[in-house]
Amino acid sequence: MPIITLTTDFGNDDPFDGVMKGVILNICSKVKIVDLTHNISPQDIYQANFLLNSCYQYFPKKTIHVCVVDPGVGSLRKPILIETKNYYFIGPDNGLFTAILEKENIQNVYELTERKYWLKKVSQTFHGRDIFAPVAGHLANGIKPRQFGRKFKKENLVTLLTNKPIKTKIGYKGIIQYIDHFGNLITNIPNDGLPLTISGNFKKHSFKGPVSSFAKAILKQLTAIKGSSGYMELFIFKGNAAKYTHTNVGEKIEVKFK
Amino acid sequence: MPIITLTTDFGNDDPFDGVMKGVILNICSKVKIVDLTHNISPQDIYQANFLLNSCYQYFPKKTIHVCVVDPGVGSLRKPILIETKNYYFIGPDNGLFTAILEKENIQNVYELTERKYWLKKVSQTFHGRDIFAPVAGHLANGIKPRQFGRKFKKENLVTLLTNKPIKTKIGYKGIIQYIDHFGNLITNIPNDGLPLTISGNFKKHSFKGPVSSFAKAILKQLTAIKGSSGYMELFIFKGNAAKYTHTNVGEKIEVKFK
Amino acid sequence: MPIITLTTDFGNDDPFDGVMKGVILNICSKVKIVDLTHNISPQDIYQANFLLNSCYQYFPKKTIHVCVVDPGVGSLRKPILIETKNYYFIGPDNGLFTAILEKENIQNVYELTERKYWLKKVSQTFHGRDIFAPVAGHLANGIKPRQFGRKFKKENLVTLLTNKPIKTKIGYKGIIQYIDHFGNLITNIPNDGLPLTISGNFKKHSFKGPVSSFAKAILKQLTAIKGSSGYMELFIFKGNAAKYTHTNVGEKIEVKFK
Repeated sequence: MPIITLTTDFGNDDPFDGVMKGVILNICSKVKIVDLTHNISPQDIYQANFLLNSCYQYFPKKTIHVCVVDPGVGSLRKPILIETKNYYFIGPDNGLFTAILEKENIQNVYELTERKYWLKKVSQTFHGRDIFAPVAGHLANGIKPRQFGRKFKKENLVTLLTNKPIKTKIGYKGIIQYIDHFGNLITNIPNDGLPLTISGNFKKHSFKGPVSSFAKAILKQLTAIKGSSGYMELFIFKGNAAKYTHTNVGEKIEVKFK
Repeated sequence: MPIITLTTDFGNDDPFDGVMKGVILNICSKVKIVDLTHNISPQDIYQANFLLNSCYQYFPKKTIHVCVVDPGVGSLRKPILIETKNYYFIGPDNGLFTAILEKENIQNVYELTERKYWLKKVSQTFHGRDIFAPVAGHLANGIKPRQFGRKFKKENLVTLLTNKPIKTKIGYKGIIQYIDHFGNLITNIPNDGLPLTISGNFKKHSFKGPVSSFAKAILKQLTAIKGSSGYMELFIFKGNAAKYTHTNVGEKIEVKFK
Repeated sequence: MPIITLTTDFGNDDPFDGVMKGVILNICSKVKIVDLTHNISPQDIYQANFLLNSCYQYFPKKTIHVCVVDPGVGSLRKPILIETKNYYFIGPDNGLFTAILEKENIQNVYELTERKYWLKKVSQTFHGRDIFAPVAGHLANGIKPRQFGRKFKKENLVTLLTNKPIKTKIGYKGIIQYIDHFGNLITNIPNDGLPLTISGNFKKHSFKGPVSSFAKAILKQLTAIKGSSGYMELFIFKGNAAKYTHTNVGEKIEVKFK
């Protein structure tokens, strides 16, 4: 049974994701549709790139990942289908798939041009419903990737300039790249690069770590841990580190080894 | 595989929609259930009527649309099943299906009276779980519409008095009938009635349009576009028009042709 | 077709529940996954216990209920599987299943110790993805409960001390145990214990009831009704009782019979 995931900035108030599901099911009735999230901050391509990258690989091979964060909808930006060794990705060509291009074995990239796989009437503002959902449905139905449009080189895909951590003599310089629902501060410093003991100052607060579980932290004290998305996080046990430290995405952090 | 959609004002915090799905799956295990939205403003029948109308037709024929925005639950308002040429609609008879009655070819309307298709214990406050979900499950299972209750005339259904735009000598007078997650202001002025160029003033702001994509707008300038729900919208590119203009649903707007 | 439900405090912004679904579907492709809610207040085990208890019994027998509200993730708290006569429950052993232990016929309790049914790489912070989701998937696939780990006595499960109402000479003393999306105040006083007429004072407001439907209340007046979760509720018709009375969970209420 084919699987389609949806990642959008549509929020949970409007039925925009629901109507995409209707379009998909109208084309392929046997598909399973899974919501990754619809609460990407409006137009935040960087956030979508980060979250999609933390999730897609947990799905079965051949899963079709549809991502619609699309401020350029209806303009010249290309609607695309990326075929990797393991997955399909569908969405606008605006950098959403930057992390995936770095990690996955890319087979082919297509610009969606074949209108017979779109809804008959295409609006100017909702290609999620009118182009991406029907293409995903037809792909789930067995239409071959090459039938959806014109192949082009992966080098011509739009990519984002994402912030990489800098290795220093004493540790890492990085940024807070995401803040989750619990207020945990997810850095861009990879777990793999961390020694047994680290420390640092973040804004007015000092921290140590990495601890082996949230419960190992001292209560109300900022603490480092190896996060589940592969990056070091700062947290407060049973608290909200983002609120406690008044932090926004993009703020700088420095980590010392020892 | 039968499909049931859910539209409610239950929000995403409580498991009210989840429990409806349990009831449905307990009766019909092979059904697919799709959430349209559970974030209709509490008791806002007008909003539900608008959103349901923008979505239902994208689903496969025979889809069962369940809508529970039901301030009169447990009182004299009728629980109903509407059978149209293409779809089924289940919910309270309080005007939720006004737009559908105007557009769809109505075949039969039933008051749900057959208690054998309800849960054994019916609460006074949650007919979504106790009446509408089980009826939807049994309908998905192949029980005929007429078996659920007493047929009555569609003329006796409760309908809402909805605001229609007024054609003037120079354009349209309408209202903002919905504000979406992005803060786009959706009017009740149909796309089909718009000429190539329009202009107008909305509150302190002037606007022009309709542009062919969001990206064609001047940054931070209120702009008109043909929206995906079939009505003219006002938006700000990568901004929030509702916040920018301090607008609530129901406010008046006038559009000039040219 | 097996059914898995998910109840978490992950919120709707992050794709944490989506990734759990990916893990499950990667193991068992034929399962149906239903969200109960992901908006349990962060780390609020009491709330999860209450909401799970109001829902689980509406699902088909053999449904697998996964609940992840897990402040002790990665520490010594046990990951568990409870097998009752009708259902399975999977989650951390921290009291989440207290109400279920009181109501269900418990057959067996297992500590999840068999790592071959977990993801290969187990993070320190996300056992929902790395342990509970894969165990649920394998259970849905037909692996026997005893294969997941070490049996232990149900008497050794962690349970919460929940607030029971006190029967007085003139009625009940109880608390507000939950506030729903509509602002209805759900007490811990059971519907079954209520006579035909009750009254009381709650904070500055007097109330009467129980009425037979929301619509039977006097507008803007606090009123009692037999709620759908089995407990007496206070509500305001088309209003928000929690906001009106400035109430938080845990506040005391006294009900007089008459």
